[in-house]
Parts: sequence; C-alpha cells; structure tokens
Amino acid sequence: MKVAVLGGGQLGRMLGLHGIPLGATFSFLEPGDAPPAGQVGSVVKAPYGDPAGLEAVASEADVVTYEFENVPVDAARRLESTVPVRPPPAALELAQDRLVEKEGFRSVGIPTADFHPVDDAGDVDRALACTGLPAVAKTRRFGYDGKGQAVVESADEAREFVGARGPGLIFETFVPFDRELSIIAVAGLDGDRRYYPLTENHHHDGILRFSFAPAPGLGEPVRARAETYAAALIDHLGYVGVMAIEFFQVGEDLLANEMAPRVHNSGHWTQDGAAVSQFENHVRAVLGLPLGDATARGHAAMVNLIGDVPRTRDVLDVPGAHVHLYGKRPRRGRKLGHVNVVGGDADEVMAGAVRVARLAGWEGPLPAPGGGG
Amino acid sequence: MKVAVLGGGQLGRMLGLHGIPLGATFSFLEPGDAPPAGQVGSVVKAPYGDPAGLEAVASEADVVTYEFENVPVDAARRLESTVPVRPPPAALELAQDRLVEKEGFRSVGIPTADFHPVDDAGDVDRALACTGLPAVAKTRRFGYDGKGQAVVESADEAREFVGARGPGLIFETFVPFDRELSIIAVAGLDGDRRYYPLTENHHHDGILRFSFAPAPGLGEPVRARAETYAAALIDHLGYVGVMAIEFFQVGEDLLANEMAPRVHNSGHWTQDGAAVSQFENHVRAVLGLPLGDATARGHAAMVNLIGDVPRTRDVLDVPGAHVHLYGKRPRRGRKLGHVNVVGGDADEVMAGAVRVARLAGWEGPLPAPGGGG
Repeated sequence: MKVAVLGGGQLGRMLGLHGIPLGATFSFLEPGDAPPAGQVGSVVKAPYGDPAGLEAVASEADVVTYEFENVPVDAARRLESTVPVRPPPAALELAQDRLVEKEGFRSVGIPTADFHPVDDAGDVDRALACTGLPAVAKTRRFGYDGKGQAVVESADEAREFVGARGPGLIFETFVPFDRELSIIAVAGLDGDRRYYPLTENHHHDGILRFSFAPAPGLGEPVRARAETYAAALIDHLGYVGVMAIEFFQVGEDLLANEMAPRVHNSGHWTQDGAAVSQFENHVRAVLGLPLGDATARGHAAMVNLIGDVPRTRDVLDVPGAHVHLYGKRPRRGRKLGHVNVVGGDADEVMAGAVRVARLAGWEGPLPAPGGGG
Repeated sequence: MKVAVLGGGQLGRMLGLHGIPLGATFSFLEPGDAPPAGQVGSVVKAPYGDPAGLEAVASEADVVTYEFENVPVDAARRLESTVPVRPPPAALELAQDRLVEKEGFRSVGIPTADFHPVDDAGDVDRALACTGLPAVAKTRRFGYDGKGQAVVESADEAREFVGARGPGLIFETFVPFDRELSIIAVAGLDGDRRYYPLTENHHHDGILRFSFAPAPGLGEPVRARAETYAAALIDHLGYVGVMAIEFFQVGEDLLANEMAPRVHNSGHWTQDGAAVSQFENHVRAVLGLPLGDATARGHAAMVNLIGDVPRTRDVLDVPGAHVHLYGKRPRRGRKLGHVNVVGGDADEVMAGAVRVARLAGWEGPLPAPGGGG
C-alpha cells in the first residue's frame, strides 16, 4: 500500500510514523529542502502544482492525500483521473477560501459569525453594516496561523486595511467567545464516522500554543452539536479522512471559524492520549481500512514548541510527557515540535503542561482550561 | 542525535519509529536487501563485521546500538574506541554463547537449569550425569527460534545429536515448567532502572506465537525475583538499554533460560499496552535520556504473524487490535508482523487475541494464559 502525500512537513512525518506499522509506504511532494517527512518516506522535490512532480509522487500510489490545504485544487483534480484522492478536492476548495468556507458552513446548517466579502473601500460600509464593529478583517486565501488578519475598530481602520491588503478580503463579526474548541472527526470510506472528544485550544499571536482534551467542563449538548456539524460537512463533501473544525464557544453555542481537510495541530494529543491517533485514523480512512477507536485514554495536554526546543532530557523528566520533534531548524515563530502530557489526573496533567511550557520558554499567561482563559 | 544500529530488521524499524519523534535520526548496518528498517533511516549495506561498513554506519553517530545479538563482538569493541556502544559489548559476548550466558547467570545468583558443555561423544556421560534425562541438547552459538536444539531421551540419542552437531554444544536439564515468562528491563545511563510487568510467552516449534501482559495470576514474590535477577545482570554488565531475560516458571521459582541484549519480541505489547514502549525506552537509554514509565495501561496480548499476513482490514475489525507489519516478503516460518490487542478487560483482550490468531491462520491449540497451557 503506497500513500502519496502532497506536502512533506511535520504532519506528513507523523502520518508516516503512524502509517508505516500498517504496512504502508509513503512518498511526499514537497518543494522545500530537508522536509520533516523525509525521514519516513521518499520525497519528490517539486512545487505542489508541478505536473511532473505530481505524476512522480502519485506513481504506483494507491491513494493521494495531503497534509496541507493550499495544494492547487486543479492539481488535485487532475490526479483524480488516475488515482483516488482523499479527502475529495472539493474540501480543499472549501478550505482555501474563507468566504467559500463560511458559505459552505452556513449551507449545511453550521452557524458562523456574520461575514461579508470585501474587495475595495467601497464595500466597507456594507460589510460593517453586516458585521458591526469591531470586525475581524482577513484575507480570504492563504492566511494561516493568524497571518493576514486584523481586528478593526472603526470604519477608517477598516478602509486602511482594505487599502493595504485588498482585494480578496472577508470581514467577520468579532466574537467575544468563551473559548476556542475544535473537533477532530474521521470519515471512513464505508461511511463509518468517529469523533474524538472536543479539544480546548489556546492561541497566542494567532498560533496554537496549548490544547486540552477532553475539553474540560464541556456539556453533552455542545459535544453533540459539534458532532452533528462535522457530520453535516462530511456528508456535504462526501468526505473521507480526518477533518478538523475550529469553533468559538459562546455559552452553549458553537460558531464555526474554519475547517482543515487534514490532520490538525489540535489533534496531536491523540498520539498519546487516544486509543488510535488521528494520524493512524487518517491513513486507515484514505486506504479504505476500518477506523480505529477515537476514545480518550484519560486527560491530555498538548504544548507546541515554537521557535525554540527545550532540552529533551528536561522535558522527559516531566511525568507523562511525550516528546514529538519535527527535525526542523529552529527559527522564530516556527513550529518545531510538540509535547503531549497525558495521565489519569487532570490537575497533574495541567501541572505537567505548565512545566513544559516554562521549559519551552513560554513567558505568556498560563492557560486556564475550562473557559477561564 | 544520530543513532547507528547494527542490524536493520523489524526491531531496527520499530526503534526508528519510536525514536524519530525524540528527534533522533537512524542509520542501519545490514547485509540483506530491502531491510524493514530502510523505511525509517539510511542503510549501509555490508556484513556486520565489515570494517568499512561499520565505519560508515557509525560516522557522526552519537551512539551505536544493535537490534540483533550475533554482531561480532570484536567489531562492537573496535567501535567503542570512537563512539559509545550501548549496551556494552560484554552483553553481546554473554548472549552469543549459551555456556557463557548460563555461567554468567549463575555467577550473579540467577538460577538456571543444570547444564554441561559437550564437544564430543566422550562428554555425553559426564553431561547427562549433571543434567539427567531427558536433556535438552543445544548448539552454544547462533541458535535462535528453537533452531539447533533437540530434546534427547537417552544416552544413545544424545550421542547421535553430538555426532551430527558437535562440537560446541551444551546439554541442559529438561525443565517441566509451568509456563514461560520474560522480563523486559531498561537501564539508564544515570543508573535509573525500569521494569515492565512480566510477560507470559507461548512458543510453538521454538517460535514465539503469543504473549500476555501483565502475566496473569502472577504473585508479587515472583515479580520481585525477576526484577532482582535483571538488576543483578545489569549491574554485572554495566548495562545500558533494554534487556530481556526469558525464564521458566516452576512453582514460585524462576530459572533463567536466555537473555537478549536488545529489545525483544516478548516486549512488543508495550507499543500499545504500556505508557512508554520498550523501543522508545531503549532509544532514550542509549542516548542518555531519562527513562519513561514502564507501567502497563491495562491488559495486552501480542500475536505474532508468522509466514503469512491476514488481511489488515479483518484484523482492524477486532476491538483493541493494533497492527504492526514489518514490510517483509512472506516466507514460511518468517516473522512478518505482530498484532497487539489491548483493553481494560482481560477476557475481551483474550477473545480478541483468539480472533486475530485464527485470522492469522493459527490452527494450533489456543493459549490458556495463567500457567494452564
């Protein structure tokens, strides 16, 4: 069984690490040098849309998947004529444009913040009438980790943003949410679905720093709602594979912020905290194998290592800590690895996560899971 | 951190899969084609004792280890002048010769069956006076998976075996044991030791077929005794890394049969059934990192896939089953993979193991853990 992966970053690396035991081999299409996935499969070095590169990586593959959503949709569709592409390219299309994504959410009954497309200064008043102020102004495409977005407090600020960044923008209502949650869902080729317990996520400067799972203090209705929303999107897209949806929780309500048609940073805790990881389940799904148990084993916290990596020996001294490094050179703001802290006691897991965060040089406020921070 | 591994089989593959997340890279010295470890590191293709091959695999390595005990001791010792070799070559020396091994066990207070070296027919009477009849006649070196051994019922049979196979033999008392147990121990560079719960093993035709852990119905004194024995051998050898010792249990007593200076098939259950696997702990140990938690998460059964691999989809339908394939071509009697079945209920785990065994074509008697079979 050969799996071709578009993208060769850390997500590809972890797909390989969890897929090789199933007997799969991996090839990765990746334009960058020394990609993290290079340790677990062959690498075709080419841009994601390069026809020769795509042909090479997909050659003799049983399935093509991706670990990154900014793969050209046309390229993914072209591949479909010769080899199954899972998740379906329609999911890429949705994920690549925040406007299409939010319209897609709404079309299947998933609530979102109010939003309005903006291309030039002339659109600003109409957009703000829809969103109110403050609003969040974002580029529709190629934004990630908080890049390409800003909170605008006035119509003047909004026009300034549009002047500098337009066209191709979206304005969204600024949501004073209680907390950020995500769901990692898995859809099998046979129609089976599994849902990991919801994860509570803490972003800082637009980058995920901490996740806690199962999200503490979560009511059953909210959990059920998230699963219903994920199922609706899976049905709509004919989805196969792992999908993540990020939500804002406001009271008992969930507003979808974005989806990722791939394994997701907020699901990394599943490597050590769930019966079967999101990575193995994605590989199982795209290969048409039965899905695995998405139950949590206990409590888990995930701490991202950003810009710098603490001494492995110090991290491993923390009870329940599991280190996952990506083999990348340190660079400011770069995700270099993560640490999962797992155990049966939520307070001990939290204490471990705090120790790891401090070792990793995190000087910001400590997260307070459960909606408090 | 680069780890050089002598041997590139499935044990090397799994060291890589569990060591890469720690940030390690791997190179393997392996004479065979398409070795299982080739998916997780670079391969130097050369015989284990080849000086150029050894130099190449160890080049820029932080540590040299092995996944196989028949590496030439001289080669391992030569490497020691330039790079740490862990476990120490003295452990290889012990493991390579059943006579040296049994004398080593005895010298540190680990009981064994009675034994006597045999080189020619003239030694037989003296040996049988020591061991009694029936005796187990074995080659001292290069035996594995039951190869090179036989039970002899009479002096005539014994002389026949010696005529055919001698010199370089050992005779041992045939032990009517209750069951076979093994301990997987880990010794850290800092003197820390961890012991996994004892494993009950079921061999057939000399090949491990099933393991159950924690070994059911095991009394605390037996567990403590096994740990004491492992500690004595670790001290004696200045050992660093994972070590396995196989025992015969007779009542409350343990007789050591053999040791392996490496990760061991009877510890494969730790991948899914323990907090930190034997593979990760071996990599941690040889790199001088803190050891990880060797606690079992629940109940685990391991079923070896020998000669043939069942359909992955069928195996994954068994609750709690985790598939580990080695990427090897099927061949009669060859270990091609294993399946760990894990869960909180011992009976359910056992039922799952039986289903997997049947899927894998096992037509022999079903194991009855707890000393009954």
